[in-house]
Amino acid sequence: MRLEEARCRRLLEGADHGSLATRHAGRGVDAVPACFAVDGSDLAIPVDLVKPKSSVRLTRAANLDADPRAVLLCEHWDPDDWSVLWWVRAWLERRTADTGERAHFESLLRAKYAQYAESPFADLSVFRITGVSGWSASPQ
Amino acid sequence: MRLEEARCRRLLEGADHGSLATRHAGRGVDAVPACFAVDGSDLAIPVDLVKPKSSVRLTRAANLDADPRAVLLCEHWDPDDWSVLWWVRAWLERRTADTGERAHFESLLRAKYAQYAESPFADLSVFRITGVSGWSASPQ
Repeated sequence: MRLEEARCRRLLEGADHGSLATRHAGRGVDAVPACFAVDGSDLAIPVDLVKPKSSVRLTRAANLDADPRAVLLCEHWDPDDWSVLWWVRAWLERRTADTGERAHFESLLRAKYAQYAESPFADLSVFRITGVSGWSASPQ
Repeated sequence: MRLEEARCRRLLEGADHGSLATRHAGRGVDAVPACFAVDGSDLAIPVDLVKPKSSVRLTRAANLDADPRAVLLCEHWDPDDWSVLWWVRAWLERRTADTGERAHFESLLRAKYAQYAESPFADLSVFRITGVSGWSASPQ
């Protein structure tokens, strides 16, 4: 069943990671797992240096340069019990952020993820949450 | 580190579900969790009647009617141990499938998911896997 907006926002804020979908000029769409932090109607996704990458200039950044719209999908999956499944989707639009905002989101990310405590970020994208929707197999 | 194609295909075939990204005419992109079955270079995603829906005519179907390209992202997530993370991404293009093929994929889906054993499917989309890519935090 569809979830109310307030419930979607709570689930989004409590989710530990998500799948970020962006537009890809050649292939139509793209998707990649993403860690994130939420603050009110804004959301930030870092490019970390903890998980090994061939480059910190990621395809998702190029995709967002061409089209700033994205979707972050967070879910609870249980292969054995589908009565507890839920997912929530945040519609995003990347926006500019000043140094102070970026530092604020870096603090939120370090508070959320122990793995980020000692590591600098290669980059950070800040998004406006333009909408949320969600679904649950059972009443939440 | 990037994963070789053969490794990506094995991880895809073994994954129990994924996140399906499609293009959305108005919002740019869309994403939703999806169960699936793989057979060689083809992949099928059902619209089931097990998980409650407000309609079996899903947004993803309308998206695929407008642009048949999609991406399925499967991942292993562990909030505490990032050394075991991996993800694999399949580039898809929806194609037509005859009754026999659809029945074959329905059998594969029922063999993969116990929840589908007794339930009919409302719909089924068959895709050609046009490419795979993947990443792992550690050598696989």
